[in-house]
Amino acid sequence: MKHTDFGAMPCPIARSLGKVGEWWSILILREAFYGRSRFDEFEKSLNIAPTMLTRRLADLVDGGLLERRQYCAKPPRYEYLLTKSGRAFKPVLLSFIAWGNEHFAPEGATLVIASRETGLAADPVLVDATTGLPINDEYYAFAPGPAASEAMRATIKEAARRGAGL
Amino acid sequence: MKHTDFGAMPCPIARSLGKVGEWWSILILREAFYGRSRFDEFEKSLNIAPTMLTRRLADLVDGGLLERRQYCAKPPRYEYLLTKSGRAFKPVLLSFIAWGNEHFAPEGATLVIASRETGLAADPVLVDATTGLPINDEYYAFAPGPAASEAMRATIKEAARRGAGL
Repeated sequence: MKHTDFGAMPCPIARSLGKVGEWWSILILREAFYGRSRFDEFEKSLNIAPTMLTRRLADLVDGGLLERRQYCAKPPRYEYLLTKSGRAFKPVLLSFIAWGNEHFAPEGATLVIASRETGLAADPVLVDATTGLPINDEYYAFAPGPAASEAMRATIKEAARRGAGL
Repeated sequence: MKHTDFGAMPCPIARSLGKVGEWWSILILREAFYGRSRFDEFEKSLNIAPTMLTRRLADLVDGGLLERRQYCAKPPRYEYLLTKSGRAFKPVLLSFIAWGNEHFAPEGATLVIASRETGLAADPVLVDATTGLPINDEYYAFAPGPAASEAMRATIKEAARRGAGL
């Protein structure tokens, strides 16, 4: 089956999805954020088939999210480290954590983001770093960027007409 | 091929990924945020095969992210509306937009989140709604939640030992 090339779509969401390939890639990035970097560490912690792991790591390196670095010459051994683009994926992971905890953890959260000072779990919300205002429908709206296609402009205009807000 | 059941994993990221099924589900949610709700609207805007769309919509309804509602009796016609859990997915989408724009839009952004007042593009960052502090390594850390397994506790402890921060 031919897979749809999400990375070639003009939408920044689709393009991001194209970059992370599929679910395993997101969990590999999660492991990298936990400080894991070696093939056998990923394999063990994710319980993933080695062929799948090899493929996903290669995709993440190709996509510029992980950097492959030799840490041992004889025998040759490599580790996989987050690049700048890879590290920038963190807010997506944190948003997934918040969403998962809020809606799909009936037995209580397993993992939280806790304040170092008080130990209390954070309630993560998105704000605009420039203005400090929360990113919601009151203050913000989708808008076409400088590279927006006609189709993207039409979608945004239609969303506004439908009253679909942020 | 048997798919791994991400939804059954204790990690809130894996569980969230289990809920959205696969990439198409995220793009269907994106369309729902644009105010689209009908089968033919999703089909046209996503250029998705009807069989795939049927499957993904059923998964999203089963997962409690979309609600199926009849809007016409003869002939029977249904629309798909975001539930509370579905609407709560928005910060994940906004994080994907920010990441995609920052790292994978060499020709410029196609879609931005713009201030209604100034028209300027937002720079979305995560803060703790309770304290107002940015969610970063200086102020926050991963911590086990009340339902954390031994394995989750070990992972978090190991991440701290490796100096892997938020």
